Amino acid sequence: MTYDHFFSAALTRLHAERRYRVFADLERIAGRFPRAVWHSPDGPRPVVIWCSNDYLGMGQHPKVIGAMIETATRMGAGAGGTRNIAGTNHPLVELESEIADLHGKEAALVFTSGYVSNQAGIATIAKLLPNCLILSDAWNHNSMIEGVRRAGAEKKIWRHNDVDHLEELLAAEAPERPKLIIFEALYSMDGDIAPVKRICDLAERYNAMTYIDEVHSAGMYGRGGAGIAAREGALHRIDVVEGTLAKAFGCLGGYIAANADIIDAVRSYAPGFIFTTALPPAVCAAATAAIRHLKSSQWERDRHQERTARVKSVLNAVGLPVMPSETHIVPVMVGDPERCKEASDLLLAEHGIYVQPINYPTVPRGSERLRITPTPYHDDKLIDALGEALVDIWGRVGLPRRHHALAAE
Amino acid sequence: MTYDHFFSAALTRLHAERRYRVFADLERIAGRFPRAVWHSPDGPRPVVIWCSNDYLGMGQHPKVIGAMIETATRMGAGAGGTRNIAGTNHPLVELESEIADLHGKEAALVFTSGYVSNQAGIATIAKLLPNCLILSDAWNHNSMIEGVRRAGAEKKIWRHNDVDHLEELLAAEAPERPKLIIFEALYSMDGDIAPVKRICDLAERYNAMTYIDEVHSAGMYGRGGAGIAAREGALHRIDVVEGTLAKAFGCLGGYIAANADIIDAVRSYAPGFIFTTALPPAVCAAATAAIRHLKSSQWERDRHQERTARVKSVLNAVGLPVMPSETHIVPVMVGDPERCKEASDLLLAEHGIYVQPINYPTVPRGSERLRITPTPYHDDKLIDALGEALVDIWGRVGLPRRHHALAAE
Ligand SMILES: Cc1ncc(COP(=O)(O)O)c(C=O)c1O
Ligand SMILES: Cc1ncc(COP(=O)(O)O)c(C=O)c1O
Repeated sequence: MTYDHFFSAALTRLHAERRYRVFADLERIAGRFPRAVWHSPDGPRPVVIWCSNDYLGMGQHPKVIGAMIETATRMGAGAGGTRNIAGTNHPLVELESEIADLHGKEAALVFTSGYVSNQAGIATIAKLLPNCLILSDAWNHNSMIEGVRRAGAEKKIWRHNDVDHLEELLAAEAPERPKLIIFEALYSMDGDIAPVKRICDLAERYNAMTYIDEVHSAGMYGRGGAGIAAREGALHRIDVVEGTLAKAFGCLGGYIAANADIIDAVRSYAPGFIFTTALPPAVCAAATAAIRHLKSSQWERDRHQERTARVKSVLNAVGLPVMPSETHIVPVMVGDPERCKEASDLLLAEHGIYVQPINYPTVPRGSERLRITPTPYHDDKLIDALGEALVDIWGRVGLPRRHHALAAE
Repeated sequence: MTYDHFFSAALTRLHAERRYRVFADLERIAGRFPRAVWHSPDGPRPVVIWCSNDYLGMGQHPKVIGAMIETATRMGAGAGGTRNIAGTNHPLVELESEIADLHGKEAALVFTSGYVSNQAGIATIAKLLPNCLILSDAWNHNSMIEGVRRAGAEKKIWRHNDVDHLEELLAAEAPERPKLIIFEALYSMDGDIAPVKRICDLAERYNAMTYIDEVHSAGMYGRGGAGIAAREGALHRIDVVEGTLAKAFGCLGGYIAANADIIDAVRSYAPGFIFTTALPPAVCAAATAAIRHLKSSQWERDRHQERTARVKSVLNAVGLPVMPSETHIVPVMVGDPERCKEASDLLLAEHGIYVQPINYPTVPRGSERLRITPTPYHDDKLIDALGEALVDIWGRVGLPRRHHALAAE
């Protein structure tokens, strides 16, 4: 075949731009999280994971694993069909009502991933609104952008978290034109939070629908883990809440929650929901167990925030360029793709610390960073070791630290 | 909010067209497949599933469930990250090499579903080929159509399985223009098979790439379950094989297999692969166990075909309108959405037999059908009961049977 050069050229471009990605082959150890085995090119090695999105360690919670095992034993592995054709399984139905309850909505719909829930949810909702205008925050996740694209509707981008700009765009439209405002509750690469209440004010003033992505906040913020909109007292003013089961809930899958007709319409019209196999019963039962546990247990959330505060203060104390964040995300700025990768490689190879470099296209070029995510299970010793390792690596890679911190050491 | 009427109107349209769908809430019983509990509006009832895409019952195989349980116990529930950020888990890496080996390709890439593998795989491959023309079989699955759409490339549709038409379209193009032929090995609603060899002949003659969807054939046909292209001796002539882990392999997830550069390019460029959480280790291990078992065990494939032949002959003997099919799919034509739903409802309510009505948009209007999928675990008694129940229902719903068969009863 004569097509090979197209693909090899595409790969050469990535190497040339220094953004060819190598995935770390990891084996988590249930009960010992964040410890894992890294299957390195030279054989297995113990490492500590510092960049997991299993933010609360629920992926290893005995209730979650227990539900998975018990359900697999009783019902088997896969769902065996699409939702319409033999695939709707009882644990999935229970999961959907658990999610609806979590976000205080009438109904919920589960997808195979948070990615698909955004892509299919946004596209389908916008298509059902004649001449819909989508107003999208500039930093919205790729899955939301794909949903907008698929909607085929007109879209306008508002500057990240800039409600004045959003208002300008809303005010320019006829009041009766359907409008859908889409945004994230918590932006995962910087850890900043959307002005949810002010967005809801504008949505009410200009008669727009609101769609919030709580992928990086559900389970972790708000009463019972209901998310940022709940914490801000604005949940009832949000039309559609989207989330994932794969981060704070430690499993797999995504969802939207909304009033019954919106959910039923997306259920009935979204190709990405209709034409694919349903989530396995064991995965659904595990997710339900995680949500239920986090509804009643505050320990994980409190400890998560406390651990995060400690990481920030340790890293700040040694003058590392911790980007300011109000949340559990601790980004440390590098600003260069090669040094970012080099720092990450050295951390892994020499300190057994795994923090993936975050490069373009996940963040803009020039803002490459290490993105650190403390969990309730990162103890003081691990945090101190992280600080020391970063100081060591920072010097060797030739990255600057803040001066007063250096002096104070 | 003033948006409610858009969604309720969308639902009213479905009711008016008699294609509003109600999902059956099922609870499979591992070890007793195809038996299940139906959570009906009046409480739980025992049923026999006759429309599962767990074609070989691998979802309940002890090796598959065992791998799932063992891996969840050791490694926990979720992967905890995207492929690039902490989510690449060792069972996933092993699964990818198992799949590559199954289809005799250099490499493979796993996605969260077969749907996403088509959508992201086709779009990304076509985008990497300058001025690509996509040649798509008219019956291709929605996930492939979405991939074509997302590719943004020009597409031409060839009449279903009509290689003369395909040749006409190929011949009209400049030889040096990149072309991608996409088709299914086995079309799941009719059970017919693509002329794989003749498509490969044309691809070679006109210098086109080939992309085959083996979603309904991998595991079930060809040596070791390598699929239809393998059975036809054409696997080495196919550039990209796509498949699912959710049907014959009884789990969840999808994949493509191809040469190393194609896989590496899709891995590096496909948003639907990059920006989503990786499959859980336990699901990957279960899928690997299923593939491995079916590589060496022929029992399931032989019994599957034998059971299918028996179902076809029993239903034909009583004059039911079984659509001719060369495969394990046994479609029984109804040709009307309401009677199709009515027949299905009666089967379930009165005979405890679950066969979902297949209506538009899954099949064209006027070709509504019951789609029966025998598995190795449907024994003679279940098959006879199915035949008797269908005869009963056919009469009551007022559907015709073939006359000579009626006479011969
Ligand atoms: C904001 C946001 N939304 C959606 C997703 C997709 O969720 P999932 O991993 O469940 O596909 C992600 C990341 O994975 C994300 O960061
Ligand atoms: C031909 C075909 N391709 C792809 C898919 C999607 O596979 P999955 O269920 O794994 O998403 C399906 C059905 O589900 C299908 O019928």
